[in-house]
Amino acid sequence: MSALNPKRTVAELKELRSLTGDENGAQRVAFTKTWVATRAWLRQKLEALPVEIHTDAAGNLWTTLRGESDRALLMGGHMDSVPNGGWLDGCLNVVAGLEVLRRIHAQYNGKPPVTVRLVDWADEEGARFGKSLFGSSACSGNLDLDEARGLKDKDGIRLPDALKEIGVDFERVKECGAELKHAAAYLELHIEQGPVLLDLNLPLGVVLGTFGVERHAITFHGQAAHSGSTPMNRRKDAFLAAAKMSPESYRIAERHGGVCTIGSCTTKPGIVTSVVEECRITLDQRHLDAAALAQMLSEAKAASEKFAREGNVKVTWERLWQIEPVLFNPRLIDLCDEAIGETCGQRHRLPSGPLHDAAEVARAGVPTVMMFVQSLHGISHNKIEDTKEEHLELCVTAFDKLAEKTLHWVRSPT
Amino acid sequence: MSALNPKRTVAELKELRSLTGDENGAQRVAFTKTWVATRAWLRQKLEALPVEIHTDAAGNLWTTLRGESDRALLMGGHMDSVPNGGWLDGCLNVVAGLEVLRRIHAQYNGKPPVTVRLVDWADEEGARFGKSLFGSSACSGNLDLDEARGLKDKDGIRLPDALKEIGVDFERVKECGAELKHAAAYLELHIEQGPVLLDLNLPLGVVLGTFGVERHAITFHGQAAHSGSTPMNRRKDAFLAAAKMSPESYRIAERHGGVCTIGSCTTKPGIVTSVVEECRITLDQRHLDAAALAQMLSEAKAASEKFAREGNVKVTWERLWQIEPVLFNPRLIDLCDEAIGETCGQRHRLPSGPLHDAAEVARAGVPTVMMFVQSLHGISHNKIEDTKEEHLELCVTAFDKLAEKTLHWVRSPT
Repeated sequence: MSALNPKRTVAELKELRSLTGDENGAQRVAFTKTWVATRAWLRQKLEALPVEIHTDAAGNLWTTLRGESDRALLMGGHMDSVPNGGWLDGCLNVVAGLEVLRRIHAQYNGKPPVTVRLVDWADEEGARFGKSLFGSSACSGNLDLDEARGLKDKDGIRLPDALKEIGVDFERVKECGAELKHAAAYLELHIEQGPVLLDLNLPLGVVLGTFGVERHAITFHGQAAHSGSTPMNRRKDAFLAAAKMSPESYRIAERHGGVCTIGSCTTKPGIVTSVVEECRITLDQRHLDAAALAQMLSEAKAASEKFAREGNVKVTWERLWQIEPVLFNPRLIDLCDEAIGETCGQRHRLPSGPLHDAAEVARAGVPTVMMFVQSLHGISHNKIEDTKEEHLELCVTAFDKLAEKTLHWVRSPT
Repeated sequence: MSALNPKRTVAELKELRSLTGDENGAQRVAFTKTWVATRAWLRQKLEALPVEIHTDAAGNLWTTLRGESDRALLMGGHMDSVPNGGWLDGCLNVVAGLEVLRRIHAQYNGKPPVTVRLVDWADEEGARFGKSLFGSSACSGNLDLDEARGLKDKDGIRLPDALKEIGVDFERVKECGAELKHAAAYLELHIEQGPVLLDLNLPLGVVLGTFGVERHAITFHGQAAHSGSTPMNRRKDAFLAAAKMSPESYRIAERHGGVCTIGSCTTKPGIVTSVVEECRITLDQRHLDAAALAQMLSEAKAASEKFAREGNVKVTWERLWQIEPVLFNPRLIDLCDEAIGETCGQRHRLPSGPLHDAAEVARAGVPTVMMFVQSLHGISHNKIEDTKEEHLELCVTAFDKLAEKTLHWVRSPT
């Protein structure tokens, strides 16, 4: 019996939810007892297949179905969640990957033409130590060991000590990079975590890559002055200049097709009877194209300087964070598009705002693509995160078709 | 010897500064020991003249030079300051008024044609209990007793208990309204506390009245959303709508000739990775004309609703405070203008942004005018508050001329 059973995936996801969630949502925070229990549950399911299972140097869990070739098709996800998280974020692609493994095993009588592997990345969310993509960035080689070595949780426990508890030697985590030696393709299915597919009334979409991010604090420096006695044309109003950045950031995003967010604004002295002396805003800009992102940043800087000049104030910038965009593999994007079209007739390509383990695998040079399934409410990292059951079944079907197409592409790259 | 001696006023102001100030500025906070010492110093100067001195039911200090008529010319100011205040704010007009009293006494051999009175209002600043114009609003009848009864200082001491310490019975403070029985005119000299005269390079100006004030908190209610996964056209960005209010408030002020200030802005959740769900700004609008002020408020409300609609957010308004404009007496404005013209050749009329005791006296129906002298830096309520000595001397001369003109007008109103 080689038939895929998407309904079984939905049932297993529900089983996992009741095992690892409570009234506040999913509690599969990495390196906790619940997470260890989650992996034990997963391992027990996997062991029903004739696969090899091991944990690598960074705590990532690898399941390998040996094929006729060492060249490997990888599928990956993460069983860990944020505290009070959603039931699908991360585990959907591991549980769906398990079903795909079952189908491939059955169809090829235990010996597919290429090796097929499923990985459960360790600590994708970074909920406890504030550093996301731990296991996948150790594997890609991008993890900054010096930075990670000093990370502590809220109880003051250091990341290296927490890792020791689960048998991982922090100083050796990058040795897991060897796992990618024969990797020929990487596939990841995920809930969208945004409203794009919901708005378009589409169940599935192909992900083109993950956004690059430029994150800055912008501070305008004016002069405090009495609200009653200071004529309008004498003011050095830091809020006026900062406020002009908001509609301008929308114009910049529109011109380039990216996104810009001013998420916070603080004012000093911040009292009703004084012109604002100092106003600090944060600006988060994202784009799939590195050149467009650089242009968005440059235009925001120019605008801030123009508004500062107009208002006779000064402006200073401070970079808070930055990451390059990661583009997925064109051929795999086409295959994913085909799989989706064959499954539900409607196709759509979209970028990913949030980061994913897939970005790390792609940065390591492995041809990669992701598939998104619609999120109800467009919301995740919250107990109300949800996806229609019919969409969950569709995504397992489409992801399986993508795996099959990719398996053939890995065997004979075109 | 009947000559006015403006240099003596400057010397007395300096004497007062050294007696009641420190390296952080003036410390004549109402109802404190330093304030009591200030009044003792003033009283000793006044007692050199054949005047009657008494404290009224609200703690205001009245000095009366009886004239041939009971009809009275009033001059007033306040000896109290904010903590770390300027050396001139308030006391300038009391000390200058003392010099004018001396000149009138000398010129009319102790019996001017009308009664001349100098008042030192109690607690103009409201620095300790957060309620300004205490003594003058008790006298005008506008003091809200129920509100004032509950006021506490930062140590939890109630206003009525603090007043008892200086011999004032809180429940009887409004009885001081009788002091205005024969009042025929009220004159007040003050530093400008703003940059208008400084910008125009003028020493003196006639004050047309005090601004009416509309003070509101405006809250925009949007929806938090992920900065990476939420398309720009899906956002309900509370900050965007609030930000648009800033340039709009400048346009409104320009159209009507008033002033508008957005002094504070707070954002929730206020994090770099989320669209702003809730944004609260404060708006302070001021105008000398009640109808124009009402129009400014109405236009700000309409704009906020337009911006809310455009951004798919909601807006709510909360009134924080409001006061009507107070217009000074046209005849006294003309007399003040003449006095200034005769003193320094250049005339200018301007409104007052900050409130003053003069507004309360005017609201009680007494014909009133104020004269402003230039403030260096356009700044007050700060130890750097200052005015050129030559301007201080000019203002004493001009204020004396105004007093003399008003004395004749009080005797024979025209």
